[in-house]
Amino acid sequence: MKAWKNNIRRVEPYVPGEQPKIDGIIKLNTNENPYPPTPEAARAASHFDMEKLRLYPDPEVTDLVNVIADHYKMDSSQVFVGVGSDDVLAMCFMTFFNSDKPILFPDISYSFYSVWADLYRIPYERPALNKDFKIVPSDYYKENGGVVFPNPNAPTALYMELDQVEDIIRHNQDVIVIVDEAYIDFGGKSARELVNKYENLLVVQTFSKSRSMAGMRIGYAFGNPELIRALNDVKFSFNSYTMNMTSIAYGVCAVKDNEYFENTCRKIIATRERSAIELAKRGFTFPESSANFIFASHKSIPAKEIFEKLKEKKIFVRYFNQPLIDNYLRITIGTDEQMDKLFQALDEIAGGK
Amino acid sequence: MKAWKNNIRRVEPYVPGEQPKIDGIIKLNTNENPYPPTPEAARAASHFDMEKLRLYPDPEVTDLVNVIADHYKMDSSQVFVGVGSDDVLAMCFMTFFNSDKPILFPDISYSFYSVWADLYRIPYERPALNKDFKIVPSDYYKENGGVVFPNPNAPTALYMELDQVEDIIRHNQDVIVIVDEAYIDFGGKSARELVNKYENLLVVQTFSKSRSMAGMRIGYAFGNPELIRALNDVKFSFNSYTMNMTSIAYGVCAVKDNEYFENTCRKIIATRERSAIELAKRGFTFPESSANFIFASHKSIPAKEIFEKLKEKKIFVRYFNQPLIDNYLRITIGTDEQMDKLFQALDEIAGGK
Repeated sequence: MKAWKNNIRRVEPYVPGEQPKIDGIIKLNTNENPYPPTPEAARAASHFDMEKLRLYPDPEVTDLVNVIADHYKMDSSQVFVGVGSDDVLAMCFMTFFNSDKPILFPDISYSFYSVWADLYRIPYERPALNKDFKIVPSDYYKENGGVVFPNPNAPTALYMELDQVEDIIRHNQDVIVIVDEAYIDFGGKSARELVNKYENLLVVQTFSKSRSMAGMRIGYAFGNPELIRALNDVKFSFNSYTMNMTSIAYGVCAVKDNEYFENTCRKIIATRERSAIELAKRGFTFPESSANFIFASHKSIPAKEIFEKLKEKKIFVRYFNQPLIDNYLRITIGTDEQMDKLFQALDEIAGGK
Repeated sequence: MKAWKNNIRRVEPYVPGEQPKIDGIIKLNTNENPYPPTPEAARAASHFDMEKLRLYPDPEVTDLVNVIADHYKMDSSQVFVGVGSDDVLAMCFMTFFNSDKPILFPDISYSFYSVWADLYRIPYERPALNKDFKIVPSDYYKENGGVVFPNPNAPTALYMELDQVEDIIRHNQDVIVIVDEAYIDFGGKSARELVNKYENLLVVQTFSKSRSMAGMRIGYAFGNPELIRALNDVKFSFNSYTMNMTSIAYGVCAVKDNEYFENTCRKIIATRERSAIELAKRGFTFPESSANFIFASHKSIPAKEIFEKLKEKKIFVRYFNQPLIDNYLRITIGTDEQMDKLFQALDEIAGGK
């Protein structure tokens, strides 16, 4: 073997959901929002001064930090912004999880957590969800190097009440606790305000789901100013200018147009509730969803089979070929029209039995 | 001290050049291009389908990778794309510099190298430039964990001939060698083609300087497919979707409009040559520049004093308050008009003596 190969960091990379490059598909596999971003973003785009792209963007992303702080009634010193919540979480892992003790996260959860832990060589343990797919707070009482969990959890879509979230934080005041709220706007209550009570808490959110801007890569975190400063120091040691000018401009619009945001979330929640009824009628069971997706298992047809047959019909949902959840499908909530096509396709698949 | 503070990664962050938020300044401090990006980017912006921002961008950045590969007559498997060359270099440090032996880079060089090394806890040594600010290839013959240097070097602007670059690579075939060519388009010859000869070589370039797109954050690297694959694996373990849709769209335009690119570079080179004459007339000495900046020292007025007096006149240049170079100014080449204002200001400063 060539000597230079010895020093390459070998990793098992995260495998994102398929991004098929074919037209005319119904894409319910990566939890994107079926509605476009606020029309204010399009307006900002049409007025955007392209000449200024020759300049570096504001490394502190001041405009976006301030508008997020204002909107959520936090101080700007409590807000960190990154290139999607994956970037924010990756920076958090690098900045805060530097203990020899294992960090803790649920065994069924966002699959990127173990990838980051492996990348940074952070030891970890994964307490099991209970039989109802719920996180058991007391599993997080033991000594550890940090805690991270999504609320609602992914891919289960299950929301944990805030008093339980706080219970986990209260039992872990010697380490950093990260609550990953990518899906919180679809029905849960954010732990954001607990940031003022627990100085070791970080709450991470994203523009990719509820604000329809997956294509622009914007995520953010709330935390006490000391944590935010530490995050920014690491970020500035990694890449001073990560967020480009268009993301900053459109991101500001997305936060400002709160009415559009709330309407979009409301529509998705309504479609989700209707979809739950329709899926139940068709023999599916699932944990109650507080997210923009439903994690569903069919009483008789294997998930993998449904996944493949839907794909043949150009409907993409997500299937995880891994223990405990390999008979489930993660189905993103699309428009009502898209969901109707899904139900029709499911009828055809079940009818063919 | 609170226990959670123990596990925070403490770093000395990179300090980028000032990005003053005041109008009417002449900004010659961060080596931005004085000309706007290709008008094709503005055209692409006006046709951009804002609705698709709801979707994730292509994680493989296929369109941009392909257009770069085509343009430079490389294979797509030899091209890696990141969020600015800082992102590309940060990923390279994390992926390839995992030896216990120190990596090598010049003592006067891009100041981010030591920041990344510290962030990832990579040992390093910094061979000194010679008295003419030149890199001495034989200093890089010793055992090491990897080599990185810019060509042209920063902040000296000095170009090293390709046979010397190759000499360094030839003596370091057991480690990864990174040639950082942020400024290569302003007069140097790229080491790109050596990628086909040395499988341990990476050549990094950027859209921030010669392509006038600092605001969009696009950098790229050429290397053998095995290195590019390793880089992509680490990138996918960090953040699958880093490059947003607008950067991909505008970046493709910048590469395709080669005539605009070449004209812009030609104009900057012409202004640089004229500026060198004007600066020499005014008592400045400097190494010969092959970049879009001049690294200049005045025969009698201290650099710090000139820096501050220029700032009072709303002209920003870069001053590094550090050993060996603390009597130099790094002056970005602006438009002819901007440079004339600089010369006038310098006359006023010298006249006041």
